[in-house]
Amino acid sequence: MKIAVYPGSFDPVTNGHLDIIERASKIFKKLIVAVIYNPNKNPLFTIEERVEMLKEITKNMENVEVDQFSGLLVHYMKKKEADIIVKGLRMVSDFEYEFQMALMNKKLSNEVETIFMMTNSKYGYVSSSLIKEIARFGGCLKDLVPEVVEKRLKEKFGKVGI
Amino acid sequence: MKIAVYPGSFDPVTNGHLDIIERASKIFKKLIVAVIYNPNKNPLFTIEERVEMLKEITKNMENVEVDQFSGLLVHYMKKKEADIIVKGLRMVSDFEYEFQMALMNKKLSNEVETIFMMTNSKYGYVSSSLIKEIARFGGCLKDLVPEVVEKRLKEKFGKVGI
Amino acid sequence: MKIAVYPGSFDPVTNGHLDIIERASKIFKKLIVAVIYNPNKNPLFTIEERVEMLKEITKNMENVEVDQFSGLLVHYMKKKEADIIVKGLRMVSDFEYEFQMALMNKKLSNEVETIFMMTNSKYGYVSSSLIKEIARFGGCLKDLVPEVVEKRLKEKFGKVGI
Amino acid sequence: MKIAVYPGSFDPVTNGHLDIIERASKIFKKLIVAVIYNPNKNPLFTIEERVEMLKEITKNMENVEVDQFSGLLVHYMKKKEADIIVKGLRMVSDFEYEFQMALMNKKLSNEVETIFMMTNSKYGYVSSSLIKEIARFGGCLKDLVPEVVEKRLKEKFGKVGI
Amino acid sequence: MKIAVYPGSFDPVTNGHLDIIERASKIFKKLIVAVIYNPNKNPLFTIEERVEMLKEITKNMENVEVDQFSGLLVHYMKKKEADIIVKGLRMVSDFEYEFQMALMNKKLSNEVETIFMMTNSKYGYVSSSLIKEIARFGGCLKDLVPEVVEKRLKEKFGKVGI
Amino acid sequence: MKIAVYPGSFDPVTNGHLDIIERASKIFKKLIVAVIYNPNKNPLFTIEERVEMLKEITKNMENVEVDQFSGLLVHYMKKKEADIIVKGLRMVSDFEYEFQMALMNKKLSNEVETIFMMTNSKYGYVSSSLIKEIARFGGCLKDLVPEVVEKRLKEKFGKVGI
Repeated sequence: MKIAVYPGSFDPVTNGHLDIIERASKIFKKLIVAVIYNPNKNPLFTIEERVEMLKEITKNMENVEVDQFSGLLVHYMKKKEADIIVKGLRMVSDFEYEFQMALMNKKLSNEVETIFMMTNSKYGYVSSSLIKEIARFGGCLKDLVPEVVEKRLKEKFGKVGI
Repeated sequence: MKIAVYPGSFDPVTNGHLDIIERASKIFKKLIVAVIYNPNKNPLFTIEERVEMLKEITKNMENVEVDQFSGLLVHYMKKKEADIIVKGLRMVSDFEYEFQMALMNKKLSNEVETIFMMTNSKYGYVSSSLIKEIARFGGCLKDLVPEVVEKRLKEKFGKVGI
Repeated sequence: MKIAVYPGSFDPVTNGHLDIIERASKIFKKLIVAVIYNPNKNPLFTIEERVEMLKEITKNMENVEVDQFSGLLVHYMKKKEADIIVKGLRMVSDFEYEFQMALMNKKLSNEVETIFMMTNSKYGYVSSSLIKEIARFGGCLKDLVPEVVEKRLKEKFGKVGI
Repeated sequence: MKIAVYPGSFDPVTNGHLDIIERASKIFKKLIVAVIYNPNKNPLFTIEERVEMLKEITKNMENVEVDQFSGLLVHYMKKKEADIIVKGLRMVSDFEYEFQMALMNKKLSNEVETIFMMTNSKYGYVSSSLIKEIARFGGCLKDLVPEVVEKRLKEKFGKVGI
Repeated sequence: MKIAVYPGSFDPVTNGHLDIIERASKIFKKLIVAVIYNPNKNPLFTIEERVEMLKEITKNMENVEVDQFSGLLVHYMKKKEADIIVKGLRMVSDFEYEFQMALMNKKLSNEVETIFMMTNSKYGYVSSSLIKEIARFGGCLKDLVPEVVEKRLKEKFGKVGI
Repeated sequence: MKIAVYPGSFDPVTNGHLDIIERASKIFKKLIVAVIYNPNKNPLFTIEERVEMLKEITKNMENVEVDQFSGLLVHYMKKKEADIIVKGLRMVSDFEYEFQMALMNKKLSNEVETIFMMTNSKYGYVSSSLIKEIARFGGCLKDLVPEVVEKRLKEKFGKVGI
């Protein structure tokens, strides 16, 4: 049976991501949520904070593991003996970029298969960058992110959820 | 473990479809290739011919079953105790239609999950309708369809593959 | 103040259409829901049935009028002294077709302005043709169409909503 | 030097087509405007009428030839010793279909090259099918089609250009 | 009657923006052109300069007000008692981003409605960033921006319009 | 006969670019591969290195010249007496940006014509930025870039192609 990896920045994890995690965890024997460590980017949350929040919200999902990686995804997958990449699609522009990445990953490692799932229509407009912008200006985040994330954003910006 | 259904008209099956069948059969315990019977459409091959060609090209894949259905896909899946729909994506326009169908099927039956796989870039431009047009005018179909399909098309149109 | 026209086939009207009608009726002084009569098409519901269903579901909206027209929309608008066309957008493919129509209508009549509204994400996957297919095969239409439409579809196909 | 073919239904030719013909004729030694004969379609103008209108509007372009063909475009090109296909692009949906056709034609005949030109933004919303609909209902076609086409449409429908 | 807000960076305002302002001002009782102040961005023109240019080109439009804001648009709208957001669409990629923003703004404030207008096809290819690039290298800006903007760009770069 | 320019950053040149160069060089009398010098960008390879690599891989193509330019492309083309811009298209998102640029260049210089070619489906997922990312982390670049580029990337990053 198959081990799947769901890679992403998760800066921070949203309810859209959580929905994919829940649904993908039901399809595969094991799902590794793998936070990408990119030293060139300037995230709001450190990689440790992002892993911590993901562990918190997936603590009751038995076959979900939270991890981090740097470098090429196909190398990481070999190390973890995983062969399925899970990605969520929201929009046409997601699609084109993910299409390119899926074909490239297939080229880099023929055993790797990318599997796409449609984001629930309720979360189709939710993205981590939009969440951060709303949090920065004190917009209401209810239903958009898990509670632990809302709390952390409030701590970062001082006044979320009014 | 999971039973998946790969639905389609397969009029006729192409190498693009075959590539998805091979890859999906490695992910799921069992893959049912399900030919849609639509009395309102006017296919080139009868449903029996389409099922026959699919059986021929999948005969060495142990966990692949070929079947046909009419009516709503979610009803058929319930009957077969299947919970995964597999679809191949080639282009943005595929994506939008399939997105709509995936959300609707989720609405009609919450246990059903749609999984998308990118068509191999070698076959991104291959469609059943284009294949039929080429066959009709005697264009070369090598590398585009399985041999059995090429032979059948030749019989239908008299002169394929020159 | 402005009179707006919301044109469409409405074969049948869906909850997605109804959402646009409600929201547009709050923006403009008067909103005319205008059913297109196209003798070359073969609709499920007659134009009278479609008008009737629309009248039923909009009966409590004071500034909404239901009407029908044939010929060019810009000619109809002149007759009704309306100057705004309202259209709902769900997807990229909607967008391109509607873009073309909006530019053409501007060319045909410079006083006419087309206004687009995004379909509520809850209804982004709902289309009249999908509704008819689901109804034909007895799928559940709850939350997708107004009750009067569900009832009418049941009468047409004999067994909707099981 | 190169011989190019600009294939299409031209039912009827629009100012958007004419713009592509003029611009492409300046790039290649010879440009063949090739009207597709498709016995399964039901055009407004016969193939003879379409060829005639094209000959009329290109009569002063020395290196433009008007012709007709049936069957596969790559076979026709071989016969005419042409190696460039010219296509106009207006929208994303054009793009995807044309992309598929260009890759398929390359597969069918490796010597054939497809070249795309952007339709002038003035004509981006003009299509033959829209033109016919406007003509049918007596909308004004000025600036959208050549004069000879406007006249012919008026003859077909009785009352264009009011 | 309705108060509408047309938000944007306007760095600088183009003829495409101006076209939307003119058309939207005819639909709504009052139109507020609201320049976004984003301290993290590095605009060519200061917010004061941008507001000034907008005031200059809209000085004869009675119901148009020019203003600036920072923070969330929905908060600003509440303060101004406005309930309509006006956005111009040029392309599919605009569409997807704006779709996401419209749904998010609806989530943040249910009374807010986003209304889209198609950019005139003459200006479909004009964007503020392209304008700045052309100005930087002395390309001709005639017909692309209002005169006051052309003059200001010339002052910034020293040699526009040759 | 025509002189064409194929502009780009080429940081570094990929097999996708090379495929366009080869095919375009067969269509036009002379093809100038023109590397854009942009002082505001931070490329991996200097402009001299990029020109050098391009010269190396095109050394056997008689009618191909490698050059560099800064400023507006239309100004550069006037200087070189070139009138055709060649661009490769891979995806819908390329298409929209290039559409905008083609219309703008037509506006800036009416004699200039932009010609698009579809990237070979084998290279549809290859981009310079993806190549750099793969090289950075030691992924295999075989079939994706010319040998000289692979060697140079290895020198930059120390360990490509393992």
